[in-house]
This record gives sequence, C-alpha cells and structure tokens, in this order.
Amino acid sequence: MKHLLTFLLLLATTSLHAQTTVEKWGCAELSFTHEAQGNPFDVTLEATFTNGDQSLSVRGFYDGDNTYRIRFMPTEEGTWSYTTRSSARALNRQKGTIEATAPTAANRGMVTTDGALGFRYAEGDRYHPFGTTNYALALFRPEIQEQTIQSLSKAGFNKTRLCILPKDYPTEHDAPTVFPFEMVSKSVDEAGKTVYKWDFTRPNPAFFQNLDRRILQLQELGIEADLILFHPYDKGVWGFDRMGEEFDRKYLEYLVARVGSYRNVWWSLANEWDLVRTKKYEDWKTLTRIVVEADPYRHLCSIHGGSAVYYDYHMPEYTHVSFQDEGPLFTMTAAGTMRQIFRKPVIADEIGYEGNTAFRWARWSPQYMTHLVTNGIMGGIYVTHGECYNAPGVKDWVFWSDGSVLRGKSWERIAFLRKIVEEAPEQIRPADICRDEVTSTAGEGYFFVYLGQQIMRDWVFNLPDSNSRFKRIQEGDKFRVEIINLWDMTIEECPTIFEATERINYRHYDKGHRLVQLPEAPYLLLRIRKVES
Amino acid sequence: MKHLLTFLLLLATTSLHAQTTVEKWGCAELSFTHEAQGNPFDVTLEATFTNGDQSLSVRGFYDGDNTYRIRFMPTEEGTWSYTTRSSARALNRQKGTIEATAPTAANRGMVTTDGALGFRYAEGDRYHPFGTTNYALALFRPEIQEQTIQSLSKAGFNKTRLCILPKDYPTEHDAPTVFPFEMVSKSVDEAGKTVYKWDFTRPNPAFFQNLDRRILQLQELGIEADLILFHPYDKGVWGFDRMGEEFDRKYLEYLVARVGSYRNVWWSLANEWDLVRTKKYEDWKTLTRIVVEADPYRHLCSIHGGSAVYYDYHMPEYTHVSFQDEGPLFTMTAAGTMRQIFRKPVIADEIGYEGNTAFRWARWSPQYMTHLVTNGIMGGIYVTHGECYNAPGVKDWVFWSDGSVLRGKSWERIAFLRKIVEEAPEQIRPADICRDEVTSTAGEGYFFVYLGQQIMRDWVFNLPDSNSRFKRIQEGDKFRVEIINLWDMTIEECPTIFEATERINYRHYDKGHRLVQLPEAPYLLLRIRKVES
Repeated sequence: MKHLLTFLLLLATTSLHAQTTVEKWGCAELSFTHEAQGNPFDVTLEATFTNGDQSLSVRGFYDGDNTYRIRFMPTEEGTWSYTTRSSARALNRQKGTIEATAPTAANRGMVTTDGALGFRYAEGDRYHPFGTTNYALALFRPEIQEQTIQSLSKAGFNKTRLCILPKDYPTEHDAPTVFPFEMVSKSVDEAGKTVYKWDFTRPNPAFFQNLDRRILQLQELGIEADLILFHPYDKGVWGFDRMGEEFDRKYLEYLVARVGSYRNVWWSLANEWDLVRTKKYEDWKTLTRIVVEADPYRHLCSIHGGSAVYYDYHMPEYTHVSFQDEGPLFTMTAAGTMRQIFRKPVIADEIGYEGNTAFRWARWSPQYMTHLVTNGIMGGIYVTHGECYNAPGVKDWVFWSDGSVLRGKSWERIAFLRKIVEEAPEQIRPADICRDEVTSTAGEGYFFVYLGQQIMRDWVFNLPDSNSRFKRIQEGDKFRVEIINLWDMTIEECPTIFEATERINYRHYDKGHRLVQLPEAPYLLLRIRKVES
Repeated sequence: MKHLLTFLLLLATTSLHAQTTVEKWGCAELSFTHEAQGNPFDVTLEATFTNGDQSLSVRGFYDGDNTYRIRFMPTEEGTWSYTTRSSARALNRQKGTIEATAPTAANRGMVTTDGALGFRYAEGDRYHPFGTTNYALALFRPEIQEQTIQSLSKAGFNKTRLCILPKDYPTEHDAPTVFPFEMVSKSVDEAGKTVYKWDFTRPNPAFFQNLDRRILQLQELGIEADLILFHPYDKGVWGFDRMGEEFDRKYLEYLVARVGSYRNVWWSLANEWDLVRTKKYEDWKTLTRIVVEADPYRHLCSIHGGSAVYYDYHMPEYTHVSFQDEGPLFTMTAAGTMRQIFRKPVIADEIGYEGNTAFRWARWSPQYMTHLVTNGIMGGIYVTHGECYNAPGVKDWVFWSDGSVLRGKSWERIAFLRKIVEEAPEQIRPADICRDEVTSTAGEGYFFVYLGQQIMRDWVFNLPDSNSRFKRIQEGDKFRVEIINLWDMTIEECPTIFEATERINYRHYDKGHRLVQLPEAPYLLLRIRKVES
C-alpha cells in the first residue's frame, strides 16, 4: 500500500496548459483525454521540451481509458516549455511548462558511463553496479512481485535485470496471467496445446502500468532496472519472440515512450540473443537502433549473449558490455583482460548463479559466487549475482527468475564487498596487469590483495611497482594493512606499519621483511593504504 | 650464394611490351629505364592488370639507377594484360601481358582468413600460424641476417615478425649501417649525441632491396613475413618514428609498392603502438587505411599494442587480432574467451619470450613457453614464439631481436605441436567453452585433453557432451587414446579402446570406468579419436 501511494505521488499529472513542478531527473507526466476514432494506439503523439539551448523530444503513449500520456525527465534544472505534435487535432499543439527543481539527495540522476571504463550518476558520484537477476520481477503473481521488491529492499543490490516479455522456463511455477498485448483468442489445438492470438497493434495498458510501478519501486530503492527487451524463453508458448519487424518496432517505441523517462532504466536488447531463433545477427542492430533513436536521454544500452557468445560491443549504440561467460571470472587476471579489450565498462551479467539445481549454470556454492564477484572487481569489471535454490520436493520460488525471497548466502557478502568498493577513491583495477595475479589498485597508495580460495598463515608484505595509471610506490612509503574477511564480513587492522623498499625486481617489499599474520580462513582481501606522514 | 641466385631467378624481369610468365601467386616484375628530371622518387607510376572480370591496380616504385619497377602478383591463372600510368611520358601507357600459370606445389597462395576464426592459403589448405619473432631480421650485419635465415630454415616456424624500420634496444650489439632513407648529414651535437638528417623524399634502394631479398628467402622457406611498419624503438636515435603525416604516407606507399606483391607479406601497423609517443590513437586508423588502400590484394593486416593494450580490432581493415597480453594464455579457458570475443582469428603475438634475461617479459622457461603456446592452441587461438638468451659475460645474439642462432628448447616442441595441429581435421577449439578447462575438439570424434603442468598417474576417460559446433558423442562410441608427450616429443598409443556411456551430468565416461595409464611427466596432451566401426 505504501508503494502504491508513493507511486501515485510520483506521477505528477497535469492538465492541459498547466505548469508542473518536478525535480531534475524526476519524471513529469502530462496526461490528455481524447476519444480516438479507430485504434487509439494509432494516434501519434510527441512533445518537444525546451530549456535554453537544450531540446528533447519524447513520444507519448496511449494508456487506455481515453487517456494519453507524455512522460518527461528534465535533465537540467529550470523551466522547460513544451509543445505537442499529434495526428489527433485535440492533442496537437498543446503547450505548457515544466519547472525542474534541484534533485533531492536520494536522486543522483541517470547513470551513464564515465567516459572510460566505469559508470557515474549524472550528478557526479561514481556508480558501481552490484546487480542481481529477477527475470520475472514484473510478470508473475502480484504478491510474489511485492515479495521480490521487499527482498530487494533489504539485499543491498543497486541493479537488477528483468524481462519485459513473459517467459516460460522449467523453473517457473506460475504462468503470467496479464499479457503485454490484447488477447484476441485463446484456444486449445488438436495436440492439446493452448494457442493464443494477439492484437500486436494494441498493447495492454494494465500490463505496462504494472511494469511502470515496479520500475518506480526499484527507483525508490536506488536500484537500476536493466530491462531485457527480448529473450529466447517464449518457447513457442505466446509468440512474443516472433511478432515481426513492424510490431517489434511498435513494441519498442511504446515501451521507450512509457518508461524511457524513468531515470533508473537501462536497455538490454536481449538476453541470450543468439538463442532467439526468430531473429538474425543483423536484426539486433536494427532493434538496437530503434531503441537508441527513440531514447533522447541515451540510457545505458547493451546486449547479452548465451554462454561465451559476444556481440559487436564496439557499436556506438552500446554503452557497455554485458557478457555471459564464466571463464573470465575464474581469475582476476582473466577479468582484467576483459577490462582491457572493449574500451567501455564491462559487466559479467551471467556467470552462473548460486544455487542447488541440476543445471550446471545454477549450482555455484555461495562461496564461489562471492569469489567470482570478487575476481571481477579485482579485475576492474562488475559481476551480477543470481540465485537458484530449489528445495527438493517443495515447489519453491527461484529468486533469479521468479523472485520472492533470497535463500542464499552470497548476497550479503556482495553487499559487504560493495561498501568496500564504494569507499575506494577510484575504480579498482589490476595494479600490474597480467603480471601480478593478486594485486589491484584504487589509486595512489591504495591497494587490494585478494588471497582467494587459499588459506594462508601469513602474507609477506609486497606490492608491485606498476600501479595502473597512478603514481608508483616510493621507497620509504609507509602502509597499513587491513584484513577483510569477505565471508565472515569482518575487517581487522594489522598492527604493523610497513615501510616500502626501493624497487626490487619489479616489486617493493617491507624493509624489515615483516609479515601480515592471517586468520585461518579463505576469501581474505587485504586493503593496503599508504599512511600519510 | 644459393639464396642470391634463387632471388634473381624469382625476379622475372621484363622489357617494355614484353610478355612474361609467372606462376599464380608468384611475383611478376616489370622494369623500366627512365632518367627523371628532379627527384626520381617524385615520378608517379602505376599499372592496372586485367584478366577477364578481374582488375588490380598496383603502384610502381623507383629502385635507383634510373630503374623503375612494377611488381604484380596474379591472383588467377591466365593472361593478365596491363597498362601503365605515369607522370613521366616515357613510363606512361606502357602495355603488355603477364601469363599466369598454375602454382607449383610449394606455392599455396596468399594466406587469408577463412571467413571465420582461422586462416587459409588461397589455394584452400588451412594455415595455422606458428610464428617466431626476429625484429631485426633485415636490419643488422648481413652475416647475421644470413645466419637467422639459416636458423629459420631448420626451426619449423611458418611465420616471423620483423621490423622494417631500424630499432635501438638495450640488447642490440650492432647498430644498423644501411638506412631506409638517404642520409643528408650525420654530426655530433654538443652533448656528444649523433644527429642524423634524412631526406624522407628519397628512400634508399639498397635498404629496401635487402628487405625484398629477406622476404623472398622467407617465402622460399614457407614462412610468412609479418612486417611491422612502425615501432617505438627508434628512441630518438634516427627519428623514423616522427617523419610526419606526409612522409609516413610516402614511406607506406613505397613499401607496399615494393613488397605488396609478395604473397607471404602481412602488415602489422605497429608493434606496441601505444608506446609510439609521436602518434596518437586516431593516427593509427589513418595509417592503417593508407596501407589497405594501397594494397589491392588485401594481405592480412593487424596492429599490436603494448602489454594488455588492445586496439579497435573490429575495424574492417584488420583481418585478425594481434595482441600482447600474457594473461589470456595462462589457461586454455582464458584463451578460449579471446577466441569468442573478436569474430576474427586471434594471434597472441607477444606473451613473453623464452630466455634468461633480467626482463620479466624475456625469461620464461622453455617448458612454460611451450605450455603457453599449447594453452593458446587448446583455446582456439595462436601464439607466437620468441627467444631471448643472454650468456652472462658474453656479447651474445638474442634471437627474438638480433637473430642468429636458436639456443632455446621450446622451438623444437612448438614444431612438434605444429604437426599435431596440422593433422587435425578442423581448427582446435574448446569443446565445452568455459565449462571444461582441459578438453578441446577438432571435429566429430576428435578431442584433445591437455594435462598441462600436472603430473598424473592416470586419467579417467571422460569427455564433455558439448562439442563446439560438431556432432556430440553418442553412447557406444568407441575411442582410442594417444599419449603425446609435448616435452619429449613422443606419441604412444594406449592399448585400451574406450566405450562412451550415455550423457551423465553433461559428460560421457567409459562404460568400464577404465583409466589411461600415464607416464610420470608433465605437458601431456591426449589425442582421443573415435574408432570407426
């Protein structure tokens, strides 16, 4: 109930010619009443919003009940004046203004890339994606959807991946009952299979209103919504993967018109694009361009392949890489290579999930899931969590897909790691790429050594001379070491202050050859910071 | 002497209007005498060769001594007629024909990509690059150059990387004495440094004639010449890395005119492009396009960065990837990732060298060098050898750079591995990418299991159900196993015939749970082939 109220408050509706106030990066909504002749979805509607030199055009959309809406996210403070254009005279040449105020503290703006290999909020803070996966977050029973949101509110993730279109998958226990298009008929064929017919010219407002709501709930929790626009999990059940070029375009444009003005939206053209048999390699470029052209804000945009299948991530439409491949997470060195190749931020969005299923992609131990996420961070990329627990004999919900509650153990460790990453002054990356397999850097005098799956009694203080693009260690620099236990989620300071030698064979040692005494535990991450003198 | 004769025989010179015969993929050479007014290098000269629908245009070049030459490689058998165009009337509108005959057995044509992730000779055979590195192959004392060629004639490599422009490097004992441009002056400045002045409008024919000769010697040995067009090793000594845009272009066009009609030429725009301080990121695109536009044959073309620095390999000008990064060779899984990303063939052209120097990039053991090459092959990419032995106290030659003799131990193992790779029916690649870290496939019923640095007593017969794009194992398939010792270079057959179970948890085992007994040795590669029944 609380969420529903929030949702209604967020939707600042307006009547014609009215002036409305919304915070920068918030979403202003104009609504218009019009009874269309024929299919109301065929009415074109768009508006251009202007503020000084800036001008942004967005499409409106039909939301049922003779209601048309235009949503707009002001990207600058100040007065934005708008004019509409429409094929319906009643909706054409409507004018008004939007007053964009300063964003409140929780609103740091849309996330974009930082121009290099990381992400930033538009307001300037660095954004480190620590995401999870909830394919059917907005698709199954409403009470499960709410439960999923509740779980996310406690988990510490700042991103999740969700499918727009219904999915059919062996782990699902519910089938969707609300669909993205108007159902024309539902029948059972001779083989006993349910056959649906859809009117793809008529999106179903109720379906998309629910989606809006879930995205805004995520926004309120500070969670980016990585929207998966197509996927191969229709499996011939509904046919949303074979609507054809014309309706794919209409679907995408409708979706972007609806949710493109929500600041926490990302576009993922597909999950496992190579497994979508109804679309060819080049089709994805066309679909990607449709989305990017419809989106005046340039939300983050990528595409995700099946296991170790990469797309043309160099395309300017793709702001970042979203790959599925476990191999590059087995070591921080392999992750580091991924950081080097693409010249864009990299997210490993599916590298297997924590779980206990019979599927090999869904049975990592929580320890190994945490380890893979850590390897990615040490390598300078980001890794997405997912969880797949089936309780034998019990029809259980699988968080990765169906949502509901988290049952695993890695999510808490990942939240702990997130804090460490966010405290670091720079994006963490290998200090001495492909030469040092345990040490990363987050700036001058700020290192991490990850001991991974080993249990060591002690560690001989030593750091590489190379330090990414940052200033190198100088002889006499003093360092303190904290022992971070990623599994127990503890941080303990080592009492010794270490003093760096000159460079000896590419490395610096402690002048007294002193050791860091370690607890008898794996998954230790040493945070090593220079002591300012 | 033998080589010089061969060289002269290969150069089928011709007088005006003559008809000359050359084999397909051989090099026909037209020569013209003309005494230019002014700088003879300023005379433009090109010719178009036509054979039916095919038409290829190449530039000619001035070779000193009032001699102009046009070289042409016929890409089809038959009669090619040509017409010249020149700014000098005497060289203009010269006409004639070239008769291209069937290639002899040793001539399999120019190497190109196979349209996927491998290479082929134009005549159809698959080409697997097993290369080495001889930066100064054509640069230092002639007797050392000859010695290097002699070494290569015995080594078993089918590719080498060599620099065109002189290099200065701590391991060199000789400085070049013949230079690519006419020297205007040589003096010593106040600081005692030798200062050269060059006329970049006048290439030095003697320098390039030697280069021609070395390339043709390599060709005769079946070795591809991967020509490095720029590099960061000038170190302010001669200034060939800062000629400026106009002279860079002239240099490239002159070089392509001279050697672009030799079938074994590849273009590598640079070694360690990022370390060439005089050129910017975008400059490499310009330079690459100059080469590709000047080359009507579309020789293989790439660019090579410093450690873990990748370029925009998606550019259509680049036929393949040529990276420097050791990390992706530490495991076959990491190499397999590289195979997946680029949608082009991948060569790891510098992953450290076998040697004993103080430099960490030049002190791999021969065992580890062999291991890295094998990891690459198992991952579906190719890895280049190099060798850097310094004998303490002795001014020795370093094969990687200076050339001369091979002193290491990996080259022989790599030649042995090459035979195994060439026997395989398909390019080797991971059978079950990122899931199986030891098994590769070369087709239906043709697997390799690499046990790497482990010494195992026995190996439980087991293979993955996934088999890249090839047909999977069926229950009842029978296999024989050979134990290949990559270090001892032996192949031993295991007496047992194994019989595959049905798929059990993604794998197939032997029905009798039988083992392969192994010798007590590391670097074992099992070749497992289906027995045809």
